[in-house]
Amino acid sequence: MSQDLHTRKLLTVICEAGLEEELAADFAAGGACGYTVTDARGQGAHGHRDGSWSSGANIRIEVLCDEPTALGLLEMLATRYFADYYMVAFVSDVAVLRPGKFQSVAN
Amino acid sequence: MSQDLHTRKLLTVICEAGLEEELAADFAAGGACGYTVTDARGQGAHGHRDGSWSSGANIRIEVLCDEPTALGLLEMLATRYFADYYMVAFVSDVAVLRPGKFQSVAN
Amino acid sequence: MSQDLHTRKLLTVICEAGLEEELAADFAAGGACGYTVTDARGQGAHGHRDGSWSSGANIRIEVLCDEPTALGLLEMLATRYFADYYMVAFVSDVAVLRPGKFQSVAN
Repeated sequence: MSQDLHTRKLLTVICEAGLEEELAADFAAGGACGYTVTDARGQGAHGHRDGSWSSGANIRIEVLCDEPTALGLLEMLATRYFADYYMVAFVSDVAVLRPGKFQSVAN
Repeated sequence: MSQDLHTRKLLTVICEAGLEEELAADFAAGGACGYTVTDARGQGAHGHRDGSWSSGANIRIEVLCDEPTALGLLEMLATRYFADYYMVAFVSDVAVLRPGKFQSVAN
Repeated sequence: MSQDLHTRKLLTVICEAGLEEELAADFAAGGACGYTVTDARGQGAHGHRDGSWSSGANIRIEVLCDEPTALGLLEMLATRYFADYYMVAFVSDVAVLRPGKFQSVAN
């Protein structure tokens, strides 16, 4: 069966909950076929390891897509959000069974 | 310490919330020692990038297991669910410290 | 753009919800710049595949960090928690665009 596995990219974004709608529009414009959101909470040190922590309502968004789309979305996030918003974004490799699936039925 | 790290598989499934009980039974039958569920919401384009979006209550299920189990579960999902349900499933490599642990105390 | 990608580690811990505060303190002491928590539920077989399942309120905590920090936190978890608590911990490789970011603004 493993010959049916194909590598795709999973883009995960953790950010303020208030950005959900705006990001959804950006993801659609950037070629994502869908996304999955879970509510999260986080704490992070602001400033440089100075021990001051803040917390708030976050969301965790995942987009399963091909590599060019993932890199394009990451670039978009960096350009539009990194300077002004709390946001962490990372990409990982995942294996999917039917690579065409998430092009018609979204993640 | 890194010599104590071993690679295992993490199977992640995103689907309709109503499938949780049925999937739990399928996972147990397929050799999973446990699973973790988070509530999620998602939007996906149905049809072929035609811009029609739908949303609904989803769940995100994770199963930590060995490779044969992960591949068997993925095959089971494809056979039983892919044709009739909204479902995205992917497998990633993760490193665990004590590989035997999740055989007695489940993920 | 891909030359701007750097590999970091994502530590994921799934455990009893009651451990959140204690783990937050341990993560900060171990060098984590922040963490993200999502509420989860899980079922796992206790004992050795004996078919008895238990469930409860869990949390899923993620820490994005460099490799030494991830390994140190994993070691800490194993030493302090694995024997006495339900806990699953795993580390995966993720690619980030700006590796310095999560040193000042935490995950």
